Amino acid sequence: MNNDTICALATAPGGALGIIRVSGPQTFAIVSTLCSLCCNSVAPNTILYTHITDGTTVIDEVLVSVFRAPHSYTGEDSIEISCHGSSYILNRILELLVQNGCRMANPGEYTMRAYLNGKIDLSQAEAVADLIASTNKATHNIAMSQLRGHFSSELATLREQLLKLTSLLELELDFSDHEDLEFADRTELLQLAQTIDRRIVRLAQSFETGQALKNGIPVAIVGKTNVGKSTLLNRLLKDDRAIVSDVHGTTRDTVEDTMLLNGICFRIIDTAGIRQTDDTVERIGIDRTYQAMEKAKIILWVIDEIPTASEIEDIRHRTEGKSLIIIWNKADIHPYSPDSQLNAIAISAKNSENIDTLEHAIYSAANIPEYNENDVIVTSARHYDALSHAHHNLLRVLDGLHSSLSGDLLAEDLRLVLSNLSDITGAAITPQETLNNIFSHFCVGK
Amino acid sequence: MNNDTICALATAPGGALGIIRVSGPQTFAIVSTLCSLCCNSVAPNTILYTHITDGTTVIDEVLVSVFRAPHSYTGEDSIEISCHGSSYILNRILELLVQNGCRMANPGEYTMRAYLNGKIDLSQAEAVADLIASTNKATHNIAMSQLRGHFSSELATLREQLLKLTSLLELELDFSDHEDLEFADRTELLQLAQTIDRRIVRLAQSFETGQALKNGIPVAIVGKTNVGKSTLLNRLLKDDRAIVSDVHGTTRDTVEDTMLLNGICFRIIDTAGIRQTDDTVERIGIDRTYQAMEKAKIILWVIDEIPTASEIEDIRHRTEGKSLIIIWNKADIHPYSPDSQLNAIAISAKNSENIDTLEHAIYSAANIPEYNENDVIVTSARHYDALSHAHHNLLRVLDGLHSSLSGDLLAEDLRLVLSNLSDITGAAITPQETLNNIFSHFCVGK
Repeated sequence: MNNDTICALATAPGGALGIIRVSGPQTFAIVSTLCSLCCNSVAPNTILYTHITDGTTVIDEVLVSVFRAPHSYTGEDSIEISCHGSSYILNRILELLVQNGCRMANPGEYTMRAYLNGKIDLSQAEAVADLIASTNKATHNIAMSQLRGHFSSELATLREQLLKLTSLLELELDFSDHEDLEFADRTELLQLAQTIDRRIVRLAQSFETGQALKNGIPVAIVGKTNVGKSTLLNRLLKDDRAIVSDVHGTTRDTVEDTMLLNGICFRIIDTAGIRQTDDTVERIGIDRTYQAMEKAKIILWVIDEIPTASEIEDIRHRTEGKSLIIIWNKADIHPYSPDSQLNAIAISAKNSENIDTLEHAIYSAANIPEYNENDVIVTSARHYDALSHAHHNLLRVLDGLHSSLSGDLLAEDLRLVLSNLSDITGAAITPQETLNNIFSHFCVGK
Repeated sequence: MNNDTICALATAPGGALGIIRVSGPQTFAIVSTLCSLCCNSVAPNTILYTHITDGTTVIDEVLVSVFRAPHSYTGEDSIEISCHGSSYILNRILELLVQNGCRMANPGEYTMRAYLNGKIDLSQAEAVADLIASTNKATHNIAMSQLRGHFSSELATLREQLLKLTSLLELELDFSDHEDLEFADRTELLQLAQTIDRRIVRLAQSFETGQALKNGIPVAIVGKTNVGKSTLLNRLLKDDRAIVSDVHGTTRDTVEDTMLLNGICFRIIDTAGIRQTDDTVERIGIDRTYQAMEKAKIILWVIDEIPTASEIEDIRHRTEGKSLIIIWNKADIHPYSPDSQLNAIAISAKNSENIDTLEHAIYSAANIPEYNENDVIVTSARHYDALSHAHHNLLRVLDGLHSSLSGDLLAEDLRLVLSNLSDITGAAITPQETLNNIFSHFCVGK
């Protein structure tokens, strides 16, 4: 498969420029036939101005960037064609490349080749997709740290320590018939195993933070009809995403958008107002509100009058296990009298009063653990799975060490731990199926 | 203004890769501060792998392509930064460039600089925008031909001939007191002027074709409600663009989409069915139908029963000056009996019967003049204007030659013709206003 020469549009269609990537053994030969160049004789890492023709018509005046194996993104001979962003030109050039022997690349195939050719490991390859998808500082930092190998080097350290542990145990094993010999102190082995396990657990635990940072923290805005939920949403998002109207029950569907607080993404879900109704469509909206509340981590309960004791009871019941923020809206017309029962934040969504305080409260309620820019944060469920398995297998090693299990049985479990960690970087042989699964989430052209 | 160093995203946001262009005297200095390179000492036309940092954090691993004045698109020192297509990364890099002294480029500013620095003339610059917008072979060919200077060289030939004419006249003028001297034969001058004028008129006339090719040929589908207009539209467009339903009056708004026939773009407009109605909304739709008919060049009148004489009279009246194609739809259930009055094409839109014949008829009705790929076709109203003025001024020269007007008055008019043609390529000094007007239609980054 790796012998195919592949091509794809690497930029989004519709700009002034477009980049078409070609990679594989026939790259220079194929591109040479489309322009008047002999790409093979071109110095690597240089840019040439040339024309792409179909034999009779000039398709475009282009810049051709030439990369020679192994010094390219994929590690193969590669060319990037920078052409005008016309849909006709982009399609025609891709058509000509395919007619001359290229195959259209699958999603992520360039990065898969970079991995297969040893340019990056699997966790770095996965970071590329995260990096491209990153829309804020937090997700960008994690992806960039992973791409630059911080996670990989953590894993390499763990691997070294595990190999040390294994070799100490195997030493014991090899000389196990010398009953009078004293081998590695089991207490020392135990301490080493515990250190490794603590680090694995810490990495696995970072997944919760990673998920929150990567997917955003779901926040539901709930309350009775007409208390100003949509106005509040607009205020938080600072645009006019939801239709605001004075008619009861305007918001029939859930509206979702994101806002950034201190570089962290919050997914704000506006919901249909909760009230007794016979309108079937509105009823569906209210059911969705309850579903949205279940998915949310933070609930913003908007009120504009003192709720009854049973309403308070109801909302506390419905928000159990969530962070609840009670918001007294319309404070400009109904001033809020602080109430120990309620502990609400008084705002006026309409007049943008006290929105800062509310944003502060939302950020605190998210309860995001402190982390440094250089901390390794696990964001991939695949990595989390591997770390969990590693921890599980290491627990058996720890048990064995406690119960003085024989070295050969312990070494067996240690090999499993090593294999679990190797799965993350792909250092071990990873079945093609796993690879396809990873790279199919990429965009084409990467 | 040209001393500013400008930056812009040159690709559409959302792809695997993005290209940020930087151009101007400070390009190398500014980009050098963002990465660990001294761009100034880099060989031109080479690509470097580096990191963009904000001083503390790595923003991205990028490829930097270095172009040195005058060998760049703009003719200035330029750099293209190829980075990951994440919105965060693209925005952050642009932000850093601006913080370090770049200005965000205006639409078309790169191409304007290419023109100001003598890399291309104005008509070529305009072709760049057309090329990027081209979505089919016809518009692509015209734009590419113009970009490659075919129009410019036509104009250069005309200019040469005009200069020859002028110099012959001025020779006459300089020696006009030598009454006994015989100068250039006025018949010869007349023939030369006529040749030039014929060419100018031919260029101006190509504008109609150019407009048709560039904007597409508007085709309206009209007829009573429920005769299958939307089904026909879908068949022509080969997708499900319009909602097809059996309810009378489904299509209340006009739907417009394009199809290609022999590389020519046709804009097909589906319309609301024409019938007597009291429904206000439907009434508006029917009024729009009449408006669409006025804008169309070709009318497809769909029927499924023999129209009355007064209906035929009405449609002939409404389609005066247009190409009318009468379509007998539902031929699968109501076979069509050829009728000399009607001369309809029988089809079944539902079963895709005879659609080829219809497409043929539509293409013929467009009446597109034969033209070769290398023919110069004028597509810009600005160029058409200039050519019309040139023709107008040349007619005065021709009149003057006929009526033996003195050479100095003729030379005056000839200079106007020259100036009209120079406006097209910008060879004469073009006021800044005209330039801004041309380049403001570009996308940013080009």
